[in-house]
Amino acid sequence: MARLAPKHAPESTMAIITLTTDFGGQSPYAAVLKGVIYTLHPEARVVDLCHDLPPQDLPHAAFYVREALSRFPRDAIHVVVVDPGVGTARRLLCARLCCGFVLAPDNGVWTWLPDAEHASVRHLINAAWWAPQVSHTFHGRDILAPAAARIAQGDDISQVGPNISDWVRLPFPVPRTSEGRWEGEVIYIDGFGNALTNLCWSEVSAAPELVVEVAGHRIAKRVRTYGEASAGELIVLGSSSGWLEIARVEGNAARALGLRRGTPVRVSSSPSGKGS
Amino acid sequence: MARLAPKHAPESTMAIITLTTDFGGQSPYAAVLKGVIYTLHPEARVVDLCHDLPPQDLPHAAFYVREALSRFPRDAIHVVVVDPGVGTARRLLCARLCCGFVLAPDNGVWTWLPDAEHASVRHLINAAWWAPQVSHTFHGRDILAPAAARIAQGDDISQVGPNISDWVRLPFPVPRTSEGRWEGEVIYIDGFGNALTNLCWSEVSAAPELVVEVAGHRIAKRVRTYGEASAGELIVLGSSSGWLEIARVEGNAARALGLRRGTPVRVSSSPSGKGS
Amino acid sequence: MARLAPKHAPESTMAIITLTTDFGGQSPYAAVLKGVIYTLHPEARVVDLCHDLPPQDLPHAAFYVREALSRFPRDAIHVVVVDPGVGTARRLLCARLCCGFVLAPDNGVWTWLPDAEHASVRHLINAAWWAPQVSHTFHGRDILAPAAARIAQGDDISQVGPNISDWVRLPFPVPRTSEGRWEGEVIYIDGFGNALTNLCWSEVSAAPELVVEVAGHRIAKRVRTYGEASAGELIVLGSSSGWLEIARVEGNAARALGLRRGTPVRVSSSPSGKGS
Repeated sequence: MARLAPKHAPESTMAIITLTTDFGGQSPYAAVLKGVIYTLHPEARVVDLCHDLPPQDLPHAAFYVREALSRFPRDAIHVVVVDPGVGTARRLLCARLCCGFVLAPDNGVWTWLPDAEHASVRHLINAAWWAPQVSHTFHGRDILAPAAARIAQGDDISQVGPNISDWVRLPFPVPRTSEGRWEGEVIYIDGFGNALTNLCWSEVSAAPELVVEVAGHRIAKRVRTYGEASAGELIVLGSSSGWLEIARVEGNAARALGLRRGTPVRVSSSPSGKGS
Repeated sequence: MARLAPKHAPESTMAIITLTTDFGGQSPYAAVLKGVIYTLHPEARVVDLCHDLPPQDLPHAAFYVREALSRFPRDAIHVVVVDPGVGTARRLLCARLCCGFVLAPDNGVWTWLPDAEHASVRHLINAAWWAPQVSHTFHGRDILAPAAARIAQGDDISQVGPNISDWVRLPFPVPRTSEGRWEGEVIYIDGFGNALTNLCWSEVSAAPELVVEVAGHRIAKRVRTYGEASAGELIVLGSSSGWLEIARVEGNAARALGLRRGTPVRVSSSPSGKGS
Repeated sequence: MARLAPKHAPESTMAIITLTTDFGGQSPYAAVLKGVIYTLHPEARVVDLCHDLPPQDLPHAAFYVREALSRFPRDAIHVVVVDPGVGTARRLLCARLCCGFVLAPDNGVWTWLPDAEHASVRHLINAAWWAPQVSHTFHGRDILAPAAARIAQGDDISQVGPNISDWVRLPFPVPRTSEGRWEGEVIYIDGFGNALTNLCWSEVSAAPELVVEVAGHRIAKRVRTYGEASAGELIVLGSSSGWLEIARVEGNAARALGLRRGTPVRVSSSPSGKGS
């Protein structure tokens, strides 16, 4: 992914801290994270990404994190709190990636980022970086937010805890493929009702003809953008982040076809099976 | 609209970049805009306005933009992405207005701002200002966000592209009027269920008596603020931005009366027609 | 509540301004507050807390404010707009608390903060601090936001208006207690469906055995964190802010039990009554 060079050297700038949680936008917990960060680091720059991830849904969160974080600069600090295991023996981590530092529970929520396998990962074990009192149910407030404030202030990341390599990997649903056929699934429904799949568009779209079967429908209309088909038409295209995307022009494909995460999607380079 | 003078000269301050989209607050696309901006401009100050505009609803978005942007300072930079025509031949624009620079598709979404007809408008045609690779489906990320980052850093706006005057105007639903009667419509339902109309309160309220007919109801109770009537009562008043507003005290007028955008509203300076 | 010391002196930093309202995230009114603040104070740092508080629901807002604001630093400036009495004779206040300055209508919305009774409170009566024209229906825009911008810029707070002591107190629902029994109620449902009660966990949990009766269910499973019980199990624990909390492991307790604000909760240190 090509990037324009920034005009100012990032070294001279206060790194941003982003927040991504499943707290719910109406809950006070996101505000509490901000209060902790601004108390420890009055010059902080906190950026909300999303507080309305579906509660404790790790695959959804992992896909969101992959899509949302990929364009951030290398010195960004990302606090990700989707944490069904809070208070148990699960670890808290700081992973160093191309898109910045990710502070998250060790449940795999960050491991769908493209360079996750090459990350430098530390176990947040140094209690001197935590709040003086740590609760059993809100480690985002008591451990992750204080660590983010310290990293943003330039504290030595090596003090946070030891490097580890056995972090939890969340299995990505890899599609099956054979001789011009792919069997994948819907992996994300966006706010327009467009369905992103786990199929890589650059791979699938190499075929001259393409038929997509999903939820009893056959879709052969392949476009570059929505405006190339008529209102109401079902189309297949490459998403802005490189996935095979199923959409309905000026409509909501997910609602129209009853799609949800996990709905099977079959792609073939010649017509097959029965459509609706 | 009178304004207090700022205490600090805006020239010495980093201009803010606001974001207004129909992406949905749960979608990763808003985060992607932020990542792009902070990568290009590490000292950026990004301000979310709304990411939950109804998908691809231009009149709704145009009214939101008019109301939301009107109080921003002259050096603000506003990225507005409601873009059903993404990837087609529709242009992208930078409009210079009293409330700042608006970067948006050429679909009229910004043209209900009071000074739109007097704007200085440029066509964003200089690819040197864009991302190195431009997708077919996400010009907010690939063109508008990079342009916003450049303007915020002080790049020469005249380099963005040529001035144009034939931008798309979205028709505003102008009310009909004759001899103390006005025929307008509901133009926006706010979060309290108050219905804003396309009728100018200072014009309509000059009459000593006023009767509003809407959805089979006649409303003659005219107040300055909600607390001047009893709980449950239907009232008419001037909205905080100057429109005739229909409200229900301690209730939700839109839900109670079944109002939606386009519901006809008739105003007369003496009683007429049948009420409920 | 212990706090880590900030690394930089807050005196040298621009204080943040937080926004908490019931405007609805889709309404333009929150954007208007930001526009006013950035116009008056171009270097402002505005932080959204929540714009989706239930409309005009003071007890909900008061609990949110208590929970959300408690961790902010002493120089933070909080604008809270839940204002059913806008435009009537109700006053607007500036309260000085441990967690910063709270600018709000005099309806008690801030009075559940732990140190509210010891606050220094001023009546915002100096029109020189307001917008030049003040509407009848949007004092957040015309009075509170301009005052916040001035305080953030270091204007003399004593000029805002006189000290008062007769501000409106919102009654907190104090639980009844006698000989190892407590009768309280649900006071807040969070985004996970966990029910917070008005019962203080440190007080209630001193008993060796604990039975909670709520909505026809008896819950005796007492844990420190969610992961200590099985999926689907109903549990009782201390919330991250010190309340007795009722939760369902990997589920939504409020939905499962039909809990809402005001649902009675009885706690006894030995089994009693009938369960389900």
